[in-house]
Amino acid sequence: MGAKILQCVPNFSEGRDPGFLNELEVVLQQFPVKVLDLSMDADHNRADCTFLGEPDAVEACAFAVTSRAVELIDMRRHTGAHPRMGAVDVVPFVPIRGLTMDETVEIARAFGNEFADKNGIPVFFYEEACTSEARRNLADVRRGEYEGMAEKLRAPNWTVDAGPQAFNEQSGVTAVGARMPLIAFNVNLQTDDVEVAKNIATAVRHAGGGLRYVKAMGLGLEDEGIVQVSMNLVNYQGTPIPRALELVRAEAARYGVSVKECELVGMVPLEALQEVASYYLQIPDFDMTQVIEYHLLPD
Amino acid sequence: MGAKILQCVPNFSEGRDPGFLNELEVVLQQFPVKVLDLSMDADHNRADCTFLGEPDAVEACAFAVTSRAVELIDMRRHTGAHPRMGAVDVVPFVPIRGLTMDETVEIARAFGNEFADKNGIPVFFYEEACTSEARRNLADVRRGEYEGMAEKLRAPNWTVDAGPQAFNEQSGVTAVGARMPLIAFNVNLQTDDVEVAKNIATAVRHAGGGLRYVKAMGLGLEDEGIVQVSMNLVNYQGTPIPRALELVRAEAARYGVSVKECELVGMVPLEALQEVASYYLQIPDFDMTQVIEYHLLPD
Repeated sequence: MGAKILQCVPNFSEGRDPGFLNELEVVLQQFPVKVLDLSMDADHNRADCTFLGEPDAVEACAFAVTSRAVELIDMRRHTGAHPRMGAVDVVPFVPIRGLTMDETVEIARAFGNEFADKNGIPVFFYEEACTSEARRNLADVRRGEYEGMAEKLRAPNWTVDAGPQAFNEQSGVTAVGARMPLIAFNVNLQTDDVEVAKNIATAVRHAGGGLRYVKAMGLGLEDEGIVQVSMNLVNYQGTPIPRALELVRAEAARYGVSVKECELVGMVPLEALQEVASYYLQIPDFDMTQVIEYHLLPD
Repeated sequence: MGAKILQCVPNFSEGRDPGFLNELEVVLQQFPVKVLDLSMDADHNRADCTFLGEPDAVEACAFAVTSRAVELIDMRRHTGAHPRMGAVDVVPFVPIRGLTMDETVEIARAFGNEFADKNGIPVFFYEEACTSEARRNLADVRRGEYEGMAEKLRAPNWTVDAGPQAFNEQSGVTAVGARMPLIAFNVNLQTDDVEVAKNIATAVRHAGGGLRYVKAMGLGLEDEGIVQVSMNLVNYQGTPIPRALELVRAEAARYGVSVKECELVGMVPLEALQEVASYYLQIPDFDMTQVIEYHLLPD
């Protein structure tokens, strides 16, 4: 278990210009990191990037790729369905192997300071890297979005964690964090009634009295004539995927609605599948060491 | 995807003397292979060993460890619950990565010839390494067990594939094969009626009109007061784990019996878990490239 593996998943406010991804790719190729995902969504007008490797390489690559995005994006022209407050909207660092959360927080804050100072962008630290509990939750940090940030930065309790206190009109504000691997899991329901999805989202999410490590929202997928409960599982050890899915299923039954299919967006750690096998196959002590390939992973 | 990875899973007719496993361990340590499992079962009076690595190393190690077992085991004194015909009962080779089944068959037959000639033991090739369809199924090859082998070897259609035609009283007969990774999956049922387990086993297995790649038997677990459908899934791509489990569950419902828990014995390839996640999480296009660690496997 020698090698330390860190992951970084920056989100950018550009989801419509394919040339943008090409520009990011040019930067990513200059670093010894493994790029797992680089994709964009036109409705959200947002791009996601996932890469991992040794901590030093990941930190250097994160700085280069986010600084390039700052040059390319002008927030004054940005519209899209996804909440956002900056060109480089969020930069979470995620410990995958051999790193503690404390070490990850230290890396995130070092990155945040360098990014803020060199680009002149206000930065807030969030999740495990937060400097106060009021900034732990990204939704609280981002509330008001890009359009409300100039005012938010004048509020006494929103002193920046790094960079200038003054709003940056072109680039907005960036949130830099450290967190557990996040699982984006969507449940599509056999109904066109968006109220059903919204009610279920409220019931299953932590904020609504539901599962501690679940964030959820209900939305309509107009093209398909169905609705979706879109969830973020922020700690798959505390709230495993099967528990979230089966609670959605149970709440959907209240409306006589069944699950059409699910989507896993992006990546999951192998350990998250351990719970899937253990729950559904009813193997109480199932263990990833029973997977052949586990023994071929680097030490 | 450069490295070729071969697995070998020899089964030995000794499950009661802990010193036996120590002897095998001494041999295994002399080769650059990864030992995934080395265990024995007293009721079955049988030991299992699973190791993997580059094909040349695995073949050499298989020869050394099986030859040592031949020295240590005398079949004239062997009794046990599990069907068996030799000291080194079966030696299956399994392609894990970068090897075709044809290449694996070639390795199995080369090993079988060397093992048979140097130890003076009759060998039959089975499964994908078989030389005729009548020898594909291990149960057909082993029928009569150790006690019936002297007679079987005199039958015209049981000319050996390697080694002497004469019965070896001390070591019996060995089956050498090539096959897909085999998944040993047991379903424990909330009843003490062994007929229920036997009926379900008949219904789900290929021989009884059930699933093509499932072998199954029903047995009582007297200590626990329950029964078990013990399955071998011989091609997890053709018959995935969820299909086998859910068919057992559906047949158990016929008797008002529910599934208490399941057991996965030994190892599974990562790809087998892909189907588990895809089926139960209702993700039609789930893919192991969505697992972070997949990207850290050796090229």
